[in-house]
This record gives sequence, C-alpha cells and structure tokens, in this order.
Amino acid sequence: MVKKADLAEHSAVRGCMVIKPYGYAIWEKMQAVIDKMFKDTGHSNAYFPLLVPKSYLSKEADHVEGFAKECAVVTHYRLKNAEDGSGVIVDPEAKLEEELIIRPTSETVIWSTYKNWIQSYRDLPLLVNQWANVMRWEMRTRLFLRTSEFLWQEGHTAHATKQEAVEETVQMMNVYADFAENFMAMPVIRGVKTESERFPGALDTYCIEALMQDGKALQAGTSHFLGQNFAKAFDVKFANKEGKLDYVWGTSWGVSTRLMGALVMAHSDDQGLVLPPKLAPIQVVIIPIFKGEEQLNAISEKAIKIKEALEAKGISVKFDNRDTHKPGWKFAEYELKGVPVRIAMGPRDLENGTVEVARRDTQTKEVMSMDGIDSAIDKLLEDIQSNIYKKAADFRSEKTTEVDSYEDFKKVLDNKAGFVMAHWDGTAETEDKIKQETKATIRCIPVDNELEEGVCMYSGKPSTQRVMFARAY
Amino acid sequence: MVKKADLAEHSAVRGCMVIKPYGYAIWEKMQAVIDKMFKDTGHSNAYFPLLVPKSYLSKEADHVEGFAKECAVVTHYRLKNAEDGSGVIVDPEAKLEEELIIRPTSETVIWSTYKNWIQSYRDLPLLVNQWANVMRWEMRTRLFLRTSEFLWQEGHTAHATKQEAVEETVQMMNVYADFAENFMAMPVIRGVKTESERFPGALDTYCIEALMQDGKALQAGTSHFLGQNFAKAFDVKFANKEGKLDYVWGTSWGVSTRLMGALVMAHSDDQGLVLPPKLAPIQVVIIPIFKGEEQLNAISEKAIKIKEALEAKGISVKFDNRDTHKPGWKFAEYELKGVPVRIAMGPRDLENGTVEVARRDTQTKEVMSMDGIDSAIDKLLEDIQSNIYKKAADFRSEKTTEVDSYEDFKKVLDNKAGFVMAHWDGTAETEDKIKQETKATIRCIPVDNELEEGVCMYSGKPSTQRVMFARAY
Repeated sequence: MVKKADLAEHSAVRGCMVIKPYGYAIWEKMQAVIDKMFKDTGHSNAYFPLLVPKSYLSKEADHVEGFAKECAVVTHYRLKNAEDGSGVIVDPEAKLEEELIIRPTSETVIWSTYKNWIQSYRDLPLLVNQWANVMRWEMRTRLFLRTSEFLWQEGHTAHATKQEAVEETVQMMNVYADFAENFMAMPVIRGVKTESERFPGALDTYCIEALMQDGKALQAGTSHFLGQNFAKAFDVKFANKEGKLDYVWGTSWGVSTRLMGALVMAHSDDQGLVLPPKLAPIQVVIIPIFKGEEQLNAISEKAIKIKEALEAKGISVKFDNRDTHKPGWKFAEYELKGVPVRIAMGPRDLENGTVEVARRDTQTKEVMSMDGIDSAIDKLLEDIQSNIYKKAADFRSEKTTEVDSYEDFKKVLDNKAGFVMAHWDGTAETEDKIKQETKATIRCIPVDNELEEGVCMYSGKPSTQRVMFARAY
Repeated sequence: MVKKADLAEHSAVRGCMVIKPYGYAIWEKMQAVIDKMFKDTGHSNAYFPLLVPKSYLSKEADHVEGFAKECAVVTHYRLKNAEDGSGVIVDPEAKLEEELIIRPTSETVIWSTYKNWIQSYRDLPLLVNQWANVMRWEMRTRLFLRTSEFLWQEGHTAHATKQEAVEETVQMMNVYADFAENFMAMPVIRGVKTESERFPGALDTYCIEALMQDGKALQAGTSHFLGQNFAKAFDVKFANKEGKLDYVWGTSWGVSTRLMGALVMAHSDDQGLVLPPKLAPIQVVIIPIFKGEEQLNAISEKAIKIKEALEAKGISVKFDNRDTHKPGWKFAEYELKGVPVRIAMGPRDLENGTVEVARRDTQTKEVMSMDGIDSAIDKLLEDIQSNIYKKAADFRSEKTTEVDSYEDFKKVLDNKAGFVMAHWDGTAETEDKIKQETKATIRCIPVDNELEEGVCMYSGKPSTQRVMFARAY
C-alpha cells in the first residue's frame, strides 16, 4: 500500500527509505500540526549534532545497553584513490581517535550541552524540541514502521522539580493523544509501560497505543520521565532559590515517521489509502468528464470557480484536467491516494447545475447542487473526519476483550486478535513468559484504568488491575 | 557575535554546531519563506537516505574527486561490551561489506532513485527538494559559515530538454536572489562561476554573492546545471514524445545555514545583531519601566493592548515584564539580539498617552502617541527593512572598485577590500596564479555584465568583460 500509493519506497541502502513527494506532503502536514502544539505548550526548536562520541553514549548504563547493538559507527573521515587504481577506498590514515555514532536518539549529546546552559533555577524549565533524522540499525525493516533511518521529533526538557518533570511527561503524552485522535482520526490508549518495555535510561515511559486493522497494536508515541539519570550522567546541576545545588529533572518524548505507517494501517481499505481530511495534502479533487476541448473548456470554467470557492474556505483542491488519462483511471488513482472527496463534473451536470460528489471513506456518491457547494463540502469534510474516527473507535471497541484465563487469552489472540485486558501479577518474569509463549506483550497499563481485584491469568497471584496485552508491530 | 547573541555554539564533536533556540527560530523563518518560494515555483519536498554507498559516490568522476577528501565514513553497525570490561567498543564482526558515506550532498543517491521514477517524458519535469543535514569533514570550521555538519535544502530536478534545465537553474538562482534581497535585506550579485569554482559534476554553477561588512565576499547560494552527467552516471533515460530514448537533463541547487552567518555579518554592529524585520523572531519588544507592582500593573494593562493590536497586524511581539532584570539590562539584551523595534513605557508615558520607540538599525528614539501605534509600528518595520537593505547596498557600491592594473588590484584588496571588477583572460592558469598571489578568487562572472573590450590585468591578453574578484569566506 505504501508503495502503491507513492508514499515511500526502499532505497539502495539497507533498511533506509525514500519518502516520496506524496508521502512527504502528509508528513509535512503532520509536522505543522505537531510543531504548533509544541509551541503552544511553550517549547522552542533547536538543533543538535548528528554524531555522538562513543564515550557519551556510554555514560548512562541502561542507555548504552539499549542502543549499542544497533549503532551506525563512523570510524574514518576521508576517502582516497586506491594506489592500484581500483577506485576509491577509505583512507586508513584518516581514522578517528574516538569513533562517532550516528544518533539513535539525542539524550546524551543534549544533556552534555545542557550542562553549560543550566546553572540556576532561573534557567529552568528548559523546553526544547528538535526535528531530526536518527538511525537505529534494524535487522528486519518495514517501510515507515521500522527503518534504519527515520525522521522524528525529540523533545528534551529540564526541570527544577520532579513533579514538574512528571507533569511535562504526561502533558506531552496528552499532546500526542490529541494529535492522534483529532488529526489522524485514530483512537489511542494512553498508558504507562512496564519496566521491561521502558526507554533505556528512563524511570517511566508513557505511551499512546493504537490498534491497526489487522488486530495488532502499534506504539504511536512515547514520553519518558528520565528522573535525574541523565543529569547525573552528565553532571547537570542547578542552584535552587535557596542557593542549594541539585541535579536537574528531565524528560524526553518523540513521535516519528512511524505515524505514517499507523495512518496507513489504521484506515486503508482494499481500494487504497483513506486519509483523514485534516492531514490530506489534497482534500478535494475535481475531475471533468468530457469529450473534446469544447466540453472541457465549459466544465473548466465552472470547475475553477468551485475550486476558488473551496480554496477561499481553506480547502486544498486539485483540478485534474489532464487529457492523457481517462476519468476512470483518475477515479482509481485518487481513491488509491486516499483523497477524501472527489467531485466529478460532466456536460449533464453543467446543464443541471449539479456535480457528483463521492466520499472516499464510505465510497458513497450523491448529486449536489453547485449552489453552496463550498459550504456543503466544508461540512462533508468534517463529517468524513469524524466518521473515520468513529469507524476506528468502533473497531477498537469490538476488538478489545477482557479475559480471565490464560486459555481464553491465547484463544482470543489467535482467533480475534486486538487488545486483550487481563490481570497480571506485576512481575517481569511472568510478562516475559507470556511474551515467549504467545508473542503478546503488555502494551501499557492504561492511565485511566479502574482498579479491580483479580488474579494473574498466568501465575494466579493477586493483581489490582487489568493491563493491556496485544501482539504488536 | 553568534555565541553572544545565543544563535549557536560549538559542540563536543569537532566541527559540529549546536543551533540554539534563538538561532533556530531565525532559521525556521528563513525555511518557511524559502519553502513557500519553492512550492510557488512548482517544487515538492521529499526525503532521501542520509547514507550513500561508497560505490555511488564514485560513479561521477568529478563528483567523487570533489568530495572524497571530506567524507565521514560509516564502517560498522554495532557496538559491544569489551571483553576486558573496559567499556563499549566497536564490534569487529559488525563490519559493513561496503562502507557508507554520510551524504555531503545527495546527487548520487537521488539520481540512483530517479532511475526508477523516470521512464517517459510524461514523468518530467521532476521538481523535488529536500530539507536535510549534510556532512563535509572540514578542517577549519567556523560557526554557520563552515561546519562539518550543516542544515540545508537541496533541490534536484530532472528535465526533458537542455533548455528547460538551464531555465530551471537560472530560475532558482533568481529565487535565492529574491530571498536574499527582499527578506535578508542583503544585496547580491548574480553570476556564473568559472570552471575551477564549479560544483563537482556540474557543467555550470550559478551563484549569488554577497559582500560582508569586513569587505570579504560570501557565496550565499548556488544553482547547478548538471547537463546529463548524473543521468549518464546512473543511466537515467526517458522516452521522448517520439519514443526515442535520451538521457535526462538535471539541475541541483542549495542554500544552507550559511545564510545565518551571512545575515549576522551583513548587518551586525558593535551592539550586536541587526535583524531585518521580515526574519526577526521577535519584531517588537515592549519593556516596562516601573517601580513596584502597582506601576507594573498599570503599564501592563496598556502594554498588553498594544501587543494585541500589533499581533492583529501579524507583528510578533514580546512583552518582557520580568522583574528579575532591570530595563537597562533588557535594552542591551534585545539590542544584542537584533530585535528591530523596542517600545519602552514608563509612568510618565501613561500620563501622556505616549511610548518611547527605539529602532535597532539606526539606534534612534522617538516619542510616539499610543493612538495609532499599531499602524505606526507596521510602517516603521517596513522602513527598517528597506533601510537595512539600503545601508548594505550603499556599502557595497562604495566597496566595489574597477581596476585596470594588477598593482591597483592588489592595493585595493589590501587597503579597501570589497568587490574588485577587473579584466581576466579567461584561463584557469591566470585565475590560479592570482589566487596564489593575492588570496582573491573570481567570485563570479555577473549575469548582467556589460561587455567591454579590455586586457587581462595579469597576462595582458584580450578580454571581453570584467569579472568580479574578492577575498572570500
């Protein structure tokens, strides 16, 4: 689907993708919305180096343990012509004294910088975000979902108190949930990761989890409470109001081009993408049905007026008047690309003052009057946005199952999939065994969980609440 | 200046910089304007991989010759714990079969992709841009001007005809000139590079050259006509309307965070940055002059109204009501940061219904009525924008000298600096000797040059036009 709809393709470099113009246009819309949300919550953008000295990565023990196995390592800084004329080779004399890692994430390089930016409580909070590429050398890759290089944003904040840092962590999870639900039309469960699923170096990882149409879960964004771990690793202290020195409290949070994968898998159907209007690069396409130039000219005149009226309402419109492709081909093309609304106009429409309006989400058509078409389409786009969300939310409700026994748990996973709510004894050991035996992981402990006495479906030990299991991407 | 004004700083990684929030905010404004210009001229954004296989870089002979000496090379993809417990080391078993280069520019990776995107004339023109980080391992670095890693955009277009590709190359040079002059308030000379200053792999390099206040030239943007070089290197052919196969014609063009350096050096004075209003993150700062909370409250009430009135006109305003810093400190701070307009309001202003307005460019102050202050400031910002441009243009006129002898040439370079217009015989040999002897290079052959018979100041051979020399960054 990602390839067919011209969103992205594999590149010649193992695991790295090319994001094609149509895919990138969606990503740009995502970025614009998210970036505004960050700025509205007081964050500024900055940019930190791509390369991380190996010794930096090593300063936080869990962190290096988590990322060491997937690091692209720069060892040399020059090529030269081979003496035997066989081509260009790495110049052995240009070996770096210390190897540099292409950032898999930037906590270390950023906290080493924050050390110089933070002296006093007056320098806090420091609320910084960066839009960047990162690299994690993945063995099995899949376009948008798991690629060696991906694009993301990473927020890195520093605070004077633990409470403020925790509040920031939760706030950013909520920002992500807001974006996922109100722009991507993708309902999410907000929760906390178990210890074994935490970000390496974090004390707590909050996340948003979405359900894809194949019944698998997808982690769509994470927000980490780092405690004072990185402040201690990089010796970042501040003088509080009383002049006493203390380590700074930190958070980090990110979403990536993985959201593109989520968008595709949450809403697509057999005909192709289904884009929520708020993120569609083209919201409305107008396709003329014509024979000969005269008909095209007559239709164009009206079509351009409709386009202008829609654009005046802030709607993005493409008028596809190419004569190199037939209407049927164009219909299929824009369905594949998920354009929310298609307007078709033929000679009879001109006579009647009507157009045929097709919505992508339900694949239904209706004839509408040209009069007031701009308001009608504006309203229709809103309907489509909420309908896509509702469809996904209904699907998720249907695919969320409470189970009380391990037998039922496995049956549900195999036959129904989706989110499975079950009691768990809180130990990493049980979690790991369930994962080994079923490939299901605890996606999160939902933040709005109701407490409920029960017994762990695996060990029979007491439990106070259900957690959310699923097989996941 | 770059450090003092909080724009950027050196990082722990040699030659790489950290772009701080205030610096990045200016870069974001630049990006927004430039990106819109690209889209208005029909270009789309996309994203291509960071890493380039070594063999790709080698496919175009001049290209690899030009970049081989400054390549960061990835040779391994994993770290591991040293067996002696001494820490994390590069895992020798995770050696790549083929080394990967961190892109110094993306012609090779993009043309290898275009091969699959282009079959017929219907696929052309292909007008793609990418915003990305690139890396050129520089030995002597300087913040924004020459750093190992920098941010830029690189446009890569493919065309069916030579003429169309040349027109694209010239168009993009003109887009850059438009941006430099009308947004950065920095006059530029548009021209063509000599052969020895061309981009490696290009048939022609167009550029915009600006003059800095120290009399040195700075290349602010380049646009390359690639001919069919990369199409041939990557075998990118298309079927024309007659069904005949031919190689595609290409262009590439880019501007980078170097523009930040240009902005600083073109306009700053002893008090700090002087930002043109169109690129200033904060266009107006309001500073209250008060003793005690009561005065501050009274001033705030009026100040917030002024802020809102200005914001309604699309002007970005900061009201700095902190009581932790004195007005004098704030004055100096916003001067340093180049904020175009400062409004100061004290108790007497409240009584009189006035404010004190200071403009950063001329450092002059005047008392203005609060009535209609929004329109007055709007107008003032326009005045400042054109005045900054005019000042730079006057400076350049003054520092542009025609010389006819090599003796005069050297005298002007040493005593006056700036652009020196002189006759040159058109040979790389003469160009190189002049460079060796004087450190001055031919910045460009201006595109709007008037032809003029003359003799080369160095060799005495005939010449048909003057070219532009300067010492440069």
